[in-house]
Amino acid sequence: MNNKGILYLIPTTLGESAYSQVIPSFNNTILQEIDVFVVENIKTARRFIKKTAPEKVIDDLVFYEINKRTNLDMLPTFLKPIDEGKNIGVISDAGCPGVADPGADVVALAHQNNIKVVPLVGPSSILLSLMASGFNGQSFCFNGYLPKEQKDRVRKLKDLERMAIAQKQTQLFIETPYRNHHVMEDLLANCNPNTKLCVAVDITMASEQIVTKTIVEWKSTKIDLNKRPCVFLLG
Amino acid sequence: MNNKGILYLIPTTLGESAYSQVIPSFNNTILQEIDVFVVENIKTARRFIKKTAPEKVIDDLVFYEINKRTNLDMLPTFLKPIDEGKNIGVISDAGCPGVADPGADVVALAHQNNIKVVPLVGPSSILLSLMASGFNGQSFCFNGYLPKEQKDRVRKLKDLERMAIAQKQTQLFIETPYRNHHVMEDLLANCNPNTKLCVAVDITMASEQIVTKTIVEWKSTKIDLNKRPCVFLLG
Repeated sequence: MNNKGILYLIPTTLGESAYSQVIPSFNNTILQEIDVFVVENIKTARRFIKKTAPEKVIDDLVFYEINKRTNLDMLPTFLKPIDEGKNIGVISDAGCPGVADPGADVVALAHQNNIKVVPLVGPSSILLSLMASGFNGQSFCFNGYLPKEQKDRVRKLKDLERMAIAQKQTQLFIETPYRNHHVMEDLLANCNPNTKLCVAVDITMASEQIVTKTIVEWKSTKIDLNKRPCVFLLG
Repeated sequence: MNNKGILYLIPTTLGESAYSQVIPSFNNTILQEIDVFVVENIKTARRFIKKTAPEKVIDDLVFYEINKRTNLDMLPTFLKPIDEGKNIGVISDAGCPGVADPGADVVALAHQNNIKVVPLVGPSSILLSLMASGFNGQSFCFNGYLPKEQKDRVRKLKDLERMAIAQKQTQLFIETPYRNHHVMEDLLANCNPNTKLCVAVDITMASEQIVTKTIVEWKSTKIDLNKRPCVFLLG
């Protein structure tokens, strides 16, 4: 593969947790060697680099932004430095790039151009909540965001419950944080009393709560989900 | 939750990679404070603790083994120290406990007893291969091991291909390492030439290869998968 650079996928923290708590020190070593970044948000990425690699001169770095507003025709330009032997880092707003964010497009393009892609270890709310749920980790599905309309959302929740029970396949999903309590209400009103639900909020933060109960147990449990990042799991 | 201990889920390396490369330093801090462990394999767990926390006196530690041979009626005994305020660590053979291993049972029991469960960050071949595949990370399914019989395996592969394409849902699966080449042959013989396949071997090791190509491109590509840990992804 000659002298091409490498595309590194560099995880960030989920919210306000300490870097050493969730990021291996090796990631900093890699970060030191990179001057070109493809990021979901330049401001967030600058802040992350300043905190993890304070000796880097931020003004010397090159940032390309990739998000909903990016013209995807520009992606090949972003990867140009790789041909010159430079490494590039992909950094998303929170957690692991490529999982539920636009970073996947730049990774796909790298493969089409025979560019080596190396993922670094870091926190993923999906994986951490699965580990801590006590549910089946041998078969699981992440379903992204739920439908916005309540009617559609309830239908989807019932589908997911059916799959979780019938196929013993853990079903994970998320919702915009200010709508979490709607999802919780819909779950309590529509799922079988014996179905198990894990609610995982503020993962890796001091306020982290990961709790698994049956629907009937949840009915008598108070938990504040409003505006807190949350993963729901049925298993 | 009074003075109960905490159940920590402590990831290990995948094969022979360096600890600092894939494990945050915080995990060692937690490890220092734990003297009771529920592990998939005592020998592997001892070796891991010796390497990451060399100052710990291994002979003072208590290990309970949880694997296929464990009588699950014994699990409540394993968690007893939690009632006395002691923390317990769960360590599996490789990667993240609770994902595709028997650790999930002890986590489920912890929730039933209102024990706090805290997952620590570490390497997962499932998540790392997903990040680096360039496939959809907004919707994905991990399907565990494939059927052993070729006829059943081919049927399953075709099902997974259909779901990957029709629902744009990334399908991940694994196979016993000495059978990897059978899976690869079945994929090449049965999938659509344009279907995209990511093959991720030796993740986090020096020999790591994560490559995404179409089936037709794979037909003219040589890759040695024999006895190497490998994740397959269709996307």
